[in-house]
Amino acid sequence: MTDFFSRSLIVHEQLRGKIGMVARMPVKTADDLSIAYTPGVARPCEVIAKDPSRAWDLTIKNNSVAIVSDGSAVLGLGNIGAHAAIPVMEGKALLFREFAGIDAWPICLDTQDAQGIIDTVRRIAPVFGGINLEDIAAPKCFAVENQLQDLGIPVFHDDQHGTAIVLLAALINAAKVVDRKLTDMRVVINGAGAAGTAIARLLRCVGHDPNVCQSVLDVIVCDSRGAIHQNREGLSPEKQQLLTYTNRENQHGSLADVLKDADVFIGVSKGNLLKPSHVKSMSKNPIILAMANPIPEIMPDEAIAAGAAIVGTGRSDFPNQVNNVLAFPGIFRGALDSRSKRISEEMKIAAAHALADCVHEPTAEMILPNPLDQTVAPSVAAAIHRVATAADGT
Amino acid sequence: MTDFFSRSLIVHEQLRGKIGMVARMPVKTADDLSIAYTPGVARPCEVIAKDPSRAWDLTIKNNSVAIVSDGSAVLGLGNIGAHAAIPVMEGKALLFREFAGIDAWPICLDTQDAQGIIDTVRRIAPVFGGINLEDIAAPKCFAVENQLQDLGIPVFHDDQHGTAIVLLAALINAAKVVDRKLTDMRVVINGAGAAGTAIARLLRCVGHDPNVCQSVLDVIVCDSRGAIHQNREGLSPEKQQLLTYTNRENQHGSLADVLKDADVFIGVSKGNLLKPSHVKSMSKNPIILAMANPIPEIMPDEAIAAGAAIVGTGRSDFPNQVNNVLAFPGIFRGALDSRSKRISEEMKIAAAHALADCVHEPTAEMILPNPLDQTVAPSVAAAIHRVATAADGT
Repeated sequence: MTDFFSRSLIVHEQLRGKIGMVARMPVKTADDLSIAYTPGVARPCEVIAKDPSRAWDLTIKNNSVAIVSDGSAVLGLGNIGAHAAIPVMEGKALLFREFAGIDAWPICLDTQDAQGIIDTVRRIAPVFGGINLEDIAAPKCFAVENQLQDLGIPVFHDDQHGTAIVLLAALINAAKVVDRKLTDMRVVINGAGAAGTAIARLLRCVGHDPNVCQSVLDVIVCDSRGAIHQNREGLSPEKQQLLTYTNRENQHGSLADVLKDADVFIGVSKGNLLKPSHVKSMSKNPIILAMANPIPEIMPDEAIAAGAAIVGTGRSDFPNQVNNVLAFPGIFRGALDSRSKRISEEMKIAAAHALADCVHEPTAEMILPNPLDQTVAPSVAAAIHRVATAADGT
Repeated sequence: MTDFFSRSLIVHEQLRGKIGMVARMPVKTADDLSIAYTPGVARPCEVIAKDPSRAWDLTIKNNSVAIVSDGSAVLGLGNIGAHAAIPVMEGKALLFREFAGIDAWPICLDTQDAQGIIDTVRRIAPVFGGINLEDIAAPKCFAVENQLQDLGIPVFHDDQHGTAIVLLAALINAAKVVDRKLTDMRVVINGAGAAGTAIARLLRCVGHDPNVCQSVLDVIVCDSRGAIHQNREGLSPEKQQLLTYTNRENQHGSLADVLKDADVFIGVSKGNLLKPSHVKSMSKNPIILAMANPIPEIMPDEAIAAGAAIVGTGRSDFPNQVNNVLAFPGIFRGALDSRSKRISEEMKIAAAHALADCVHEPTAEMILPNPLDQTVAPSVAAAIHRVATAADGT
């Protein structure tokens, strides 16, 4: 791994930027210059001045996304700040380009104040058709995203919803492999941060009219103190809200306690935290999605040895990689193409099903498509577009 | 012209964005993905977290510029707002790319408050190596630019300094053509907005150690009420400051009054405002730079008929086009390459001389290079780099 990381540094040093700008018209003649810049550019300006929505037809707005981070929760590295977050946001911009043909620009913010982030996103929004929030720490990320939902363009925190969508797709196919109904399963989520909260929230909508979103699955969320239940004191507002649709039997106890007879373990927590004895205590043929990076909550071979039917991780060197790149390019592609104002729960569910359907015959070793599969983003985009169009584009 | 503007609208409709993003590395294999994104991207992140200046070596920062506008003073169109400003900023990004290989991204702000602009630029700065302020109304533009000079990257209001640099280059060569010393000339600037103020400020440094910047040229600035002089009441702070280095004889009167026996007329005001009688009242062989757009202060044929030796305008269909594209790409190229923290007066003077030198044998019909001349930006960049290096990069 040392060699690998050294090589990554060298590649970054050589490239000095994994993305760049490209001209989409020539500037070789006086006429080119007069059209692209003064005086010709005045005409589209005047048209947009009369009707700002025409910016969608006449500028890059229809294809551009800002990748916004304050550097407060970058990968597994934590709060490393705005400058250190740039390589991640550039990488994301590269994936937007390569998988969905989207022009995405990294915006790394020299503020970590929620209101500062909100104000800045509002101010820079005009040129963008969507905002991808990235690597912003919980619980701040919830307020930032919620308060920007009226912006008129989708504001989507990928660490929450991208993860939740890919995870739901994995669960849909895992249920097929073990030949059980997803809605009958008992799920334990370990980790109540951005991803854990969003996963619980999305699972709430499974098997229902997504506009109703009543809990069907039996989901329990654990944090470092064990199960989140009604009788715990000092719960944050976010955790209190989680309780409105999780832990319906109000179970108390540690992760080990609530894992007994559970069907699914979803880890968005820390490496090496799930023991073989935990897996053995679960129901028959349990599904383990251990997404801590770079060390999963349990290594796949250990989990299989302990009886797991299916294991997914965040890593590319094991089967069933839960990787956000399976979702975000297609989601924004579909949202831009339908000029959606936000990404609804219904869109997320549709995206998860579209993603699951990209695997024609799921197996224990293949519940998700390969992250490099170029057909995934168009399928996800089509699902988003379908929901958006059915809802009259909102 | 109707046809031309219709064609411009069609081109903008067809392109839906004059610029776009491009990948600078492939994402075809699992290894590509692991280097560009997780887990490999963690390594450059860690390096930058320890030393934020390493972002210059490892990310797009070394080659990126934000083109920031609030849409309050766009071209001759006025306060048309953020969305309507996008085509201009995109055009500028296209020119940055084509003339200087710079990755520039348009940022159109949904605020017109000076402090809001300042705060936003500070917050989005980390990913950029320079900030091009654009089409921000005076006097707000002065405060915005001044208060951002400590940002650690160049913050350059092109409507002020880009115009001033190209204009000074034009004057340098015009003086050669009429075989006179620039420092002996009497100059009248009509217009005390962003451009007029910056021109007066830059002319103050001509013929001197630019670190001293004492007035050598005799410059008078006029606004709509005539000459700006010591005895006028209600002068703005900016106009009061202009008086510290202009109108040394404290002349009163109208534009017509102060133009008598002047050698140079610089118009950054309104079309058709300079009459042949004004030109006739000037000294022998006067130089007329009439930059109002799209209608110059006087048409070139009228000015020549009235005795002008040299006429320049902002238009591409007349000789001697004063076009900012001659300056800003090279200025930012040189600043990025030398990691300059700001664009000093000395750099501006050096850029003007380099630009003037791009015309090997100036004539009355060619005091400036063609805006499409690809050799200009590298020459200007080299001049900026030379000054920056001599001053230890600051």
